[in-house]
Amino acid sequence: MEHHSLWQTIFYRSLAAHEKIPASRYLQLATVDNHGHPHCRTLVFRGFNQDKNQMYLHTDNRSEKMSQLERHNSVEACWYFSETREQFRFSGHVESISDKKSISHKKSISQSEQSKTTSCSPEAQRLRLTHWQNLSDALRESYGQNYDIAKPDENFVLLILHITRVDYLRLAPLPHLRVIYHLDASENWQAKSALP
Amino acid sequence: MEHHSLWQTIFYRSLAAHEKIPASRYLQLATVDNHGHPHCRTLVFRGFNQDKNQMYLHTDNRSEKMSQLERHNSVEACWYFSETREQFRFSGHVESISDKKSISHKKSISQSEQSKTTSCSPEAQRLRLTHWQNLSDALRESYGQNYDIAKPDENFVLLILHITRVDYLRLAPLPHLRVIYHLDASENWQAKSALP
Repeated sequence: MEHHSLWQTIFYRSLAAHEKIPASRYLQLATVDNHGHPHCRTLVFRGFNQDKNQMYLHTDNRSEKMSQLERHNSVEACWYFSETREQFRFSGHVESISDKKSISHKKSISQSEQSKTTSCSPEAQRLRLTHWQNLSDALRESYGQNYDIAKPDENFVLLILHITRVDYLRLAPLPHLRVIYHLDASENWQAKSALP
Repeated sequence: MEHHSLWQTIFYRSLAAHEKIPASRYLQLATVDNHGHPHCRTLVFRGFNQDKNQMYLHTDNRSEKMSQLERHNSVEACWYFSETREQFRFSGHVESISDKKSISHKKSISQSEQSKTTSCSPEAQRLRLTHWQNLSDALRESYGQNYDIAKPDENFVLLILHITRVDYLRLAPLPHLRVIYHLDASENWQAKSALP
């Protein structure tokens, strides 16, 4: 068995317990707008890389969350699992992998801000292409009029949430349990219990 | 039949369609901390006043969200209804109705900030008492050691979300539908369609 951090073991168990419930793939992503106000919407979980502590999400380049993430890429994702009554709150920053043309256009507007939130490394673009190819036809069509399975639509954005903190809450069985995990400066996970 | 605004009619229909699913009473509340970072957690829906466009939620005075709300009371609540595949995003500001002693203590620290987020009007305290009395014994016990049904525990806080904007998204049946409702300066609801 591969090595999992403490919270990953719990997280995989929760995922497995809900694998037959489609709505359990939905989580809520909180962002901040340019007035400093919070926003929150439902997104579909698109995968997880346990070695890199990365969660994958998809969005459309035309969405409001994209302009919010370009200015402020610190986020929190809240995922509630109804059957086991567990909540995971994943905090970290989001890296947006979007179309190269789109990135270069935006760079001319605000280069310093943009550099925080996008990347066009070949590796990141390959990952974006893989996510694009794994989508259903209907989802690919939702990004634009003429889609090509070999090339992601310019509106298709892969979001990589780099997780640095996990706030875990278990509401059942009693007593409630809350543990906060954070990645320390040496990239090791530390855990401490907290008041539920 | 009572008069409902456009979005309230849809909202009541969604509530009715999910009334037998306990997990459908859960929504996610997004707030901002004093570093400007977003946070998001699951709360239980505790009622709605259609005439005042108020949503009710409960929290514990010791929670992190309380200190966040005292500094920044603009929030967004995201509520996803799994059976009908609808999402409501409720934006507005939160008024916190907490224990009078607690309020006066905090006022000495930061009077100007505090005044935005709390109220101790007799009407608000009566509403808080009603909410307290409607809780189960187990929930009342969760706020403190020695609870009195006639008097809310000092840690029990009633949150009133004053809704001024509703972002409604319907994912089924196709085509997707998104309508944004906002309360205008004359306190009338205006609707406009948006890109899903």
